[in-house]
Amino acid sequence: MNNQTIPNPLLKRVSLTPHRSAIQFENRTYTFQEIYELSFQMAGHLQGLGVKKGSYVSVLLRNHIDTAVVLLSLQLLGGIAVILNNRLTSEELAFQIDDSKSMLLITEDSFMEKVEDLEKVVSIVRKESMENTPFDEPHLVKEIALDDICTVMYTSGTTGNPKGVLQTYGNHWWSATGSALNLGLLEEDCWLCSVPMFHISGYSILMKSIIYGMRMILQQNFDAKETIKVINEEKVTIMSIVTTMLTRVIEELGENSLGASFRCMLSGGGPVPIPLLEKCVEKNVPVYQTYGMTETSSQIVTLSPEFSIKKLGSAGKPLFPSQLKIVDAVGNDVGALESGEIVVKGPNVTPGYLNRDEVLSDGWLKTGDIGYVDEEGFLYVQDRRSDLIISGGENIYPAEIEGILTAYSDILDAGVIGVDDEEWGQVPAAFIVSKEPLREKDIIEFCTKKLAKYKLPKKFYFVEEIPRNASRKLLRRELRKMYEELQ
Amino acid sequence: MNNQTIPNPLLKRVSLTPHRSAIQFENRTYTFQEIYELSFQMAGHLQGLGVKKGSYVSVLLRNHIDTAVVLLSLQLLGGIAVILNNRLTSEELAFQIDDSKSMLLITEDSFMEKVEDLEKVVSIVRKESMENTPFDEPHLVKEIALDDICTVMYTSGTTGNPKGVLQTYGNHWWSATGSALNLGLLEEDCWLCSVPMFHISGYSILMKSIIYGMRMILQQNFDAKETIKVINEEKVTIMSIVTTMLTRVIEELGENSLGASFRCMLSGGGPVPIPLLEKCVEKNVPVYQTYGMTETSSQIVTLSPEFSIKKLGSAGKPLFPSQLKIVDAVGNDVGALESGEIVVKGPNVTPGYLNRDEVLSDGWLKTGDIGYVDEEGFLYVQDRRSDLIISGGENIYPAEIEGILTAYSDILDAGVIGVDDEEWGQVPAAFIVSKEPLREKDIIEFCTKKLAKYKLPKKFYFVEEIPRNASRKLLRRELRKMYEELQ
Repeated sequence: MNNQTIPNPLLKRVSLTPHRSAIQFENRTYTFQEIYELSFQMAGHLQGLGVKKGSYVSVLLRNHIDTAVVLLSLQLLGGIAVILNNRLTSEELAFQIDDSKSMLLITEDSFMEKVEDLEKVVSIVRKESMENTPFDEPHLVKEIALDDICTVMYTSGTTGNPKGVLQTYGNHWWSATGSALNLGLLEEDCWLCSVPMFHISGYSILMKSIIYGMRMILQQNFDAKETIKVINEEKVTIMSIVTTMLTRVIEELGENSLGASFRCMLSGGGPVPIPLLEKCVEKNVPVYQTYGMTETSSQIVTLSPEFSIKKLGSAGKPLFPSQLKIVDAVGNDVGALESGEIVVKGPNVTPGYLNRDEVLSDGWLKTGDIGYVDEEGFLYVQDRRSDLIISGGENIYPAEIEGILTAYSDILDAGVIGVDDEEWGQVPAAFIVSKEPLREKDIIEFCTKKLAKYKLPKKFYFVEEIPRNASRKLLRRELRKMYEELQ
Repeated sequence: MNNQTIPNPLLKRVSLTPHRSAIQFENRTYTFQEIYELSFQMAGHLQGLGVKKGSYVSVLLRNHIDTAVVLLSLQLLGGIAVILNNRLTSEELAFQIDDSKSMLLITEDSFMEKVEDLEKVVSIVRKESMENTPFDEPHLVKEIALDDICTVMYTSGTTGNPKGVLQTYGNHWWSATGSALNLGLLEEDCWLCSVPMFHISGYSILMKSIIYGMRMILQQNFDAKETIKVINEEKVTIMSIVTTMLTRVIEELGENSLGASFRCMLSGGGPVPIPLLEKCVEKNVPVYQTYGMTETSSQIVTLSPEFSIKKLGSAGKPLFPSQLKIVDAVGNDVGALESGEIVVKGPNVTPGYLNRDEVLSDGWLKTGDIGYVDEEGFLYVQDRRSDLIISGGENIYPAEIEGILTAYSDILDAGVIGVDDEEWGQVPAAFIVSKEPLREKDIIEFCTKKLAKYKLPKKFYFVEEIPRNASRKLLRRELRKMYEELQ
């Protein structure tokens, strides 16, 4: 049976448990029935705007109940959500909207300034004015095929422009069930989502809420004090977190600990430093370290807390439906404890990228990350792809910044690396070769239009030459040596 | 991505949680590591006997730790287990072994008398002598495709010979995860299996144990006193049961109730009578009524206890991945509260029957059962396929018995229906037209060689004529009227 089908997740959920709590946002709790009714209304307006099965629709929204409704209404219609990172600049957004050939951009008042110029490339509708658009009795997609594309999220490659990662309904389904097999599934489960819904970390919580019939608490922004309050008062059991957030929660906790109902801090976006992990153990905060990416529709490898000390620093083992291997430069498997590229496979792994021909070899995705597995099969991630910078949970790709820098008229060559930062884990540092002396201020001003704020280099070094090999390939390790000598 | 793959379930489980308790049998608990090692050994011997990926291997074994090991070793090799009902006669077994072209029959000493004559049709190996067969380092199938056939179990059609239901790895996987999404998945879960492993009810518990990493307790036979003792002492949380078993457990309980850890009595194989259900409510025994069949790889529709009184008599709603509709004689959907044939669809539904051309229409399986759904979508099963007799959880197909009866030289015509029985729910009653007066004893003696004991008619009525329509089709409703008049 090729391309298995299942019922449309929201329709199925509302038929099973309409009156259960679904999403809590700003002190109001919505049942699955209410979420369905809101999504149905939204679907009618979107259909009125021309959205139908297979339409690509860009979504630029902050965490909000309306965002959940927009995303679910697209599922009801069989539309494909191209979910845009809020922090991108107008130019970056334009690229993704254009590349995905989105027929509509759904956004909100607070982003209107940013999207003003985009009206040339796409029709724009603000959620605040959705009610004024015509309502057309929506044609609901009752059954979805697991291979159908549900969402597209862009990530940058090692070179060139960002690529749209295709995420199928099956990818989201297997991710949710693979996680449940690992973490268990309790009636009282409640997942706190203060990570962005435009990242797979947030979107996957929404999918779990629907598939599990589980309450989720959605927050617009992360705030450590608020997090602790909500966990304790609302009996949160699971929270998705990145290291910078976890650090603040632990600081804010002080001598206190979290409520007894809390059972899992699911930590992604880079390894948790050992001293922080030790503090968590001390305070009885159960940290599940994970390894995953947009291409794996969230976690693919997870470490249970029972191993968090014995296997300190490990990301764990691949979830039940998934596989992992470490390969050398020519693609051969290496033995235990030998470093190599991490290659993953599983029904939660993307079938590929939008408008790109790259195909996975027998389902295996080359992550570009470096790591090894120990004799017992636990994964240790040594380096996210040699060039990747993780800053406060956001992925930054140096090639993208380098491309912008060298577009600046007086810059002859540029190289970017991630350097340690107490607050953000890492921040980008730029090495620049220029004709004339340049002012940082001018370079930043130039970049600000083209790069999201978190991608802007925080340090600049003006040098004679960027280290490159004979074929002009940037030698990032040499750049790192130069950086260390400069400290 | 056609034909998705996942890791071989046992290999994956042993890599994730080798030291967790897997199966408890006769006061010994085996970890997943131990189960794996036993299965590996067994796989080596089976490979030595010629079993390889795709081989059909018949299995005739009683519930025992060895049975779990044999079934899992076949999964390790990618062999297909044709799982035989222990209660079948030699002739019935011969048909299934021949129809499936099994290259080997694995059985045990206690069945040797029964299988003696089968040596003409298949090689036979007894589990007790497995160690004396050559061991060949087994080629383990590391990755399985969800569409690969894992097991075959025979059921009878409305006419003619039994058909081999194909169950894929995907069917078992989706059944296990669909159930977990409904029942939840707790670390302390422990499933009591005293239903036969040759039925999907028992086999599906084994699959859940592997996929969930859950402890199961395996019993050779059902005994009400023992059941209560084990539930309480071993902190069982879930048990699969049929009505006749449930009646005995409730009787045996007397004034007592079950241990607090117990959370789910999963009841299949026909509806639970309302007085029994009321007794269960009284005693705080949470009964989940289900509807399912070999073709749906166990439950496909389940009623949560929260609805067991409000929706008394309902089998519930289809599990998350599954769908249900009620159709009229020409296949059109009927409205709520209207009776019709129950038709089901989902990734847990069989792709079809062995060596048969019948294909499902767009994935929909016609169950032959009659029922309706209420306005809220709850299923009420009114009649298992008009002819099906359910006796102590075993399915009996009248056509099969009629075929045997009419083969008896002096019988001119015969008709069989199920009649109520206090102990077994239903038993078969035979109506016979004969040339000469016949003795029940002689007919039973004749049938005993050809029919499993539970299929033997318990009552005989000698009549002038069997009611048939113009095209000679048996009018079973008329037969039932005749029966009622005779009481």
